[in-house]
Amino acid sequence: MRLVVEAAEPGRRELVPLREASGRRLAEPLVATTDWPPFARSGLDGFAVRSADTAPASPGSPVTLRVAEAVAAGSLAAAPLAPGTAVRIMTGGAVPQGADAVVMLEQTADALLDGQPAVRVKHAAEPGQNIAPRGEEFRCGSVLAEPGARLRPGHVALLGTFGYADVPVYAHPRVAVLATGAELLPVEAPLAPGRIRDSNSAMVAALVEQYGGVPLLLGRVPDEPEAAARAITEALAQSDIIITTGGVSVGDYDVMASLLHRLQPPRDAAAGSEEAAPSQQAPSPEVPRTGFASEAPPPSTAAARQPAPPPSAAAELPPGSRPLFNKAAMRPGSPTSAAVLGGKLLLALSGNPGACFVGFELFAKPAIQRMQGAAAADALPKQATAKLAAGFDKGSPHERFVRTRLYTREGVLYADPLAFGKSSMMASIPDADGLIRIKAGPEGAAAGTVVDVILL
Amino acid sequence: MRLVVEAAEPGRRELVPLREASGRRLAEPLVATTDWPPFARSGLDGFAVRSADTAPASPGSPVTLRVAEAVAAGSLAAAPLAPGTAVRIMTGGAVPQGADAVVMLEQTADALLDGQPAVRVKHAAEPGQNIAPRGEEFRCGSVLAEPGARLRPGHVALLGTFGYADVPVYAHPRVAVLATGAELLPVEAPLAPGRIRDSNSAMVAALVEQYGGVPLLLGRVPDEPEAAARAITEALAQSDIIITTGGVSVGDYDVMASLLHRLQPPRDAAAGSEEAAPSQQAPSPEVPRTGFASEAPPPSTAAARQPAPPPSAAAELPPGSRPLFNKAAMRPGSPTSAAVLGGKLLLALSGNPGACFVGFELFAKPAIQRMQGAAAADALPKQATAKLAAGFDKGSPHERFVRTRLYTREGVLYADPLAFGKSSMMASIPDADGLIRIKAGPEGAAAGTVVDVILL
Repeated sequence: MRLVVEAAEPGRRELVPLREASGRRLAEPLVATTDWPPFARSGLDGFAVRSADTAPASPGSPVTLRVAEAVAAGSLAAAPLAPGTAVRIMTGGAVPQGADAVVMLEQTADALLDGQPAVRVKHAAEPGQNIAPRGEEFRCGSVLAEPGARLRPGHVALLGTFGYADVPVYAHPRVAVLATGAELLPVEAPLAPGRIRDSNSAMVAALVEQYGGVPLLLGRVPDEPEAAARAITEALAQSDIIITTGGVSVGDYDVMASLLHRLQPPRDAAAGSEEAAPSQQAPSPEVPRTGFASEAPPPSTAAARQPAPPPSAAAELPPGSRPLFNKAAMRPGSPTSAAVLGGKLLLALSGNPGACFVGFELFAKPAIQRMQGAAAADALPKQATAKLAAGFDKGSPHERFVRTRLYTREGVLYADPLAFGKSSMMASIPDADGLIRIKAGPEGAAAGTVVDVILL
Repeated sequence: MRLVVEAAEPGRRELVPLREASGRRLAEPLVATTDWPPFARSGLDGFAVRSADTAPASPGSPVTLRVAEAVAAGSLAAAPLAPGTAVRIMTGGAVPQGADAVVMLEQTADALLDGQPAVRVKHAAEPGQNIAPRGEEFRCGSVLAEPGARLRPGHVALLGTFGYADVPVYAHPRVAVLATGAELLPVEAPLAPGRIRDSNSAMVAALVEQYGGVPLLLGRVPDEPEAAARAITEALAQSDIIITTGGVSVGDYDVMASLLHRLQPPRDAAAGSEEAAPSQQAPSPEVPRTGFASEAPPPSTAAARQPAPPPSAAAELPPGSRPLFNKAAMRPGSPTSAAVLGGKLLLALSGNPGACFVGFELFAKPAIQRMQGAAAADALPKQATAKLAAGFDKGSPHERFVRTRLYTREGVLYADPLAFGKSSMMASIPDADGLIRIKAGPEGAAAGTVVDVILL
């Protein structure tokens, strides 16, 4: 996650109208342009008074003040408040000079004084009562929101208050979405024997939009490694980040694994690094492909097991390309890999829908948020701690991310595991509020254990 | 909340492309169109075998099987698996007839048998191992999502899997947003003495969009009650629901209070109902308006205190109009009111930004969700229980909704109150994850108390 966030740089900026700013990330710090409130405001409907005038008031012996005028919200008193007088004032009205308290309408009674309208006050008013003094909430120049902050409706209220009709935000990153796999059909196609529909592209597009990116659905990566490299290079030209699904496993047709493998340093340089070039996990791009068709004679499978030869075709990859990680110590989605290709981030997610979903949340979401200016720490998944509602008795050599529904009881947050390990189990994806992190180990975790949960 | 949800009916439906369906609410139940998986699928890369053939295998005495062919994902085996043979198979490939297990590639070794490619298996395979049988996840016809369900990216994956290229959803409700208040300036205007900018309209519009509505920003309601009634009637013609901010208080210019008051039943009918027509809370529409300008002689304030006369101008309100509630026993936002006007929902929220926000979450959000087909119970705010991180020592005659930030520690959910009561405190609105419910009473609540929290 750290490698991905470091490789994803905040991108273009743009100005958007205030009413489109919610959900976007701020590109510049915005400050209060005035004190707020900009003048001493009445907090309610009533009468502005000099508190000293009301000091002797009691229910048995009320004070009667002549009503000098009325101040609606938006207008100003004609004159400062004279001693012995009151001014009728509405919620939000500017408190007249000389007044230092507002008495609630309901705590007064109408009266006449020398035939003029007056008001009877039955309690002494405290100085400052029911008045919001100028600058009580904000001082001019104080920061309203920092760059990278994701704007919410409450920010919109703040920015509107201070006159920001247009708001500088980061542009939506353009995210190319490609699927791999000869078995994939478009969603609208009828099923055919041995084939399935590409549901990952639409899911990834929906996730991209949810986190502020613009998805570019580019269909299927060609099966052939050279064509795949070209298609991906072309996709890079029109996008800020590229997400692929599938093709990262150890299968003989896993073009993404093949492509990523070309970015690996020579094997000597990788010595000592367990993940850099595991020989069984990244097939050579030179695996013979004829012979694997179902009607041809069976080929040797040896090619997929050999240490990869030097990446002869690497020249086709654009400059500014380097691996970030090749496979991840996680379940589901251990084949998930990432690279920088031509200076842009390439995330190769698993083809299993559940693993694809987890990989997106762990790697793509932080990258997309970082590209919109989120601080590096803020781009990483938000976590909570919760008690396991049910035991999870399956161990794993790698940390496991288990989809969960969260609920509370008596102030305790419970995480109820939804999918017991099968990374292809789709039904639980829409129900997940979080991902329970189960540490690597032979035992899983017992009910009641406090676990870390990534919030979705 | 119940009254509002009952008055908000699910609205128009439309078909949208799958990739635009996330965030929308489903208008019809959608079902699995096939079994899933549609065929027995290999869960990983390896070799499809007859488990019986591998029964004698051990690391010291492996079984060698001739590799008959290779099945990529998307293709089919040419022939059923003959005894003594294996088929190379990729993740997602259709398991050939006759095979009942898949052995992981990494647990095999290449071999030759009579000069032909073969594979050496060192462990007995369990029947069914690494195979997802047809229909394991879904049976054809099983329900994927019910009407009213809010679609998430995981639903998009499900619907794509089953070929739903277009999805029947509820249309975005059109929500008219109007502000009241002579003091209000547009966001882009420079401040003037005694005036403030209308920040509520943009905030409400952002909230409307967040919950699936389309906001129609209609500016400011005229100050004059008859003109206000006309403006609101016109707004109804182009919207499914109308939300106003401000003008619901006891002030002499509170046009919304005046308008809502016309919907009240005659006072006799309201006898015994505390909230129906409190004489001090709803000024008459006939309050004389000249004389209130700051330079004119002071008026009597008596009009605002009189029992309202029969609603003489009620004929101007469209048929199908009735009050839902006039004021609410809550803080902030006690003037919040609701009515049905011409068969459509009118929500009159408070003008204080904090109270407006709370009123939106409590009343407008459920209505907007209900209009998109959410089940009545599902339209109501989602709640959790949490421990108060800090005491809240302010009592209130009404239930109080305190903005809060939520966090967990050791599996306990804590609610940290953000805004201590001042309903105009804007700074805490963007930071709020929830609203703590503090029961009415003289004492508030102590730190550590378990409280209900409405999740935002």
